[in-house]
Amino acid sequence: MDPVIILTVLFISGLIVEAMTGAIAAGELKMDLFGVLVVANVTAFGGGVVRDLILGSSPMLFISKPELLFLTSAFALIMVLIARYFDKLRWAFLALDALGMITFTIVGAIRAQDMGFGMGVASIAGFTTGVFGGILRDILCNRIPLAFQKELYASVSIVSVWIYLLLEHFGLPMSFIVIFTLLFGFCFRMLALKYDWRVPQFVYEVNKPRN
Amino acid sequence: MDPVIILTVLFISGLIVEAMTGAIAAGELKMDLFGVLVVANVTAFGGGVVRDLILGSSPMLFISKPELLFLTSAFALIMVLIARYFDKLRWAFLALDALGMITFTIVGAIRAQDMGFGMGVASIAGFTTGVFGGILRDILCNRIPLAFQKELYASVSIVSVWIYLLLEHFGLPMSFIVIFTLLFGFCFRMLALKYDWRVPQFVYEVNKPRN
Amino acid sequence: MDPVIILTVLFISGLIVEAMTGAIAAGELKMDLFGVLVVANVTAFGGGVVRDLILGSSPMLFISKPELLFLTSAFALIMVLIARYFDKLRWAFLALDALGMITFTIVGAIRAQDMGFGMGVASIAGFTTGVFGGILRDILCNRIPLAFQKELYASVSIVSVWIYLLLEHFGLPMSFIVIFTLLFGFCFRMLALKYDWRVPQFVYEVNKPRN
Repeated sequence: MDPVIILTVLFISGLIVEAMTGAIAAGELKMDLFGVLVVANVTAFGGGVVRDLILGSSPMLFISKPELLFLTSAFALIMVLIARYFDKLRWAFLALDALGMITFTIVGAIRAQDMGFGMGVASIAGFTTGVFGGILRDILCNRIPLAFQKELYASVSIVSVWIYLLLEHFGLPMSFIVIFTLLFGFCFRMLALKYDWRVPQFVYEVNKPRN
Repeated sequence: MDPVIILTVLFISGLIVEAMTGAIAAGELKMDLFGVLVVANVTAFGGGVVRDLILGSSPMLFISKPELLFLTSAFALIMVLIARYFDKLRWAFLALDALGMITFTIVGAIRAQDMGFGMGVASIAGFTTGVFGGILRDILCNRIPLAFQKELYASVSIVSVWIYLLLEHFGLPMSFIVIFTLLFGFCFRMLALKYDWRVPQFVYEVNKPRN
Repeated sequence: MDPVIILTVLFISGLIVEAMTGAIAAGELKMDLFGVLVVANVTAFGGGVVRDLILGSSPMLFISKPELLFLTSAFALIMVLIARYFDKLRWAFLALDALGMITFTIVGAIRAQDMGFGMGVASIAGFTTGVFGGILRDILCNRIPLAFQKELYASVSIVSVWIYLLLEHFGLPMSFIVIFTLLFGFCFRMLALKYDWRVPQFVYEVNKPRN
């Protein structure tokens, strides 16, 4: 199967799922529908925006293809309608979210490579694209980023981007690399959710009054 | 009347009022005067900064005209002195804020059009310029953006920008379009405040433990 | 002594110390190690990132020299290991932090001058580089920026950058200017900490229900 088609389909699917996670986060804060749309679109496009800002790449996706905002906004509103069934759809949702995040990671790394950057910057770009949409969502919603506290998420992104880059470095065919990275990252994330794998925490207790 | 003069006067007035809303937000958190100045200027210039970042346009206003920072900073400090009378000035303040927000919206859309973008991107640029200064203020002040929770605000910006763009599309004279959009948006916002119009909320209750 | 060498050594030291303050902030929130690394690097490089974004300068430091991320990440992890001794190291830490912040301020101003900007923009660039890493850290950690609430910090940055710019304006030798600014800023900050100097607060009490 053509890896470009796979990535495109999963990328669009990822935008939609990210928008829906943004809508849910806004709903938990009882935002109005306008807030829902803004948070949803910041979540969907935010990772790519941060990557484009740090790489100095332009134009941004939602500027070159503003019609994508209709798609993400429509699904954010659909999420408002179906939110009552969200618990039943939870695992389907987490599975799509995992695929979307890994796709964003791969796409971000490819974007940096297309601009001529090496593996170090490509890994930063991939990680940023995969994870910062959710971080911006949590900043807008005034909460500590989930990516830093819950089951492996950011870690899946960084491990996946290095698997992708190393396999490519060794000259394996693109279609194999993309499918392998997607499968690996997907299984890694789903197992982390299932068995509650976490990165060790760093707990610093403040003993003294610090104002 | 020359629409450029109207927009320039209202734009400067908008910078000042936005800076003053930033000062008030900082005062509610008991920030020091330095924090007041930073929050005030981020509020005043932040919408344009976000727009310039997503459009890739430069230089930013406060870089090409840093002397404007004296103006906004001076009024932020004036706000500190007159804050005790703020409740009495509340409606005058809200009126100036409404005019400033719609002016920012129109100016943002014009900036995108000057760069050759179409109506879709111009509406994003207008909305961003009008609303994101306040969103950055609320992020710095660690609270959920007011624009997503209170009376119509973001909605007034997006409706106004489309009225502006459509009237222009139909070839009406610029001075008419600017004045009509300003009046429309101003009345819309003031009526929303007076009668407490709101966008429907999306309330998502978390039933289950999610960690 | 060559001011370039002094600034380079202090700049690297500043990156490390800023990364360690980010790690401590993440530990106070019980983030996982991945969150620690992200917050640490955002704190270390964030001031320069914001400056580069507002000046439109590129490439960013961590993109042109991604190997620096290993250094800051390593010291963030070291901080996790030595955090229990942090209270004993507190003053050494604050001293290094003060030197780092003033170095960032000077380096930021120089960057703007190298791009051809005047003193106004150079002072904004210096201040931004010195202070916004900590502001981004506090936003990620969902707290009100310390720079706006505690002992003089942002003020030391802005006073130092103007001393630097004015001494340079009067044609004094570079090595003298750099050392004088560093010493001045360092003493100013340490005295502010020792004697709890603060900028006056602006306290605005909300009397009325505002929803």
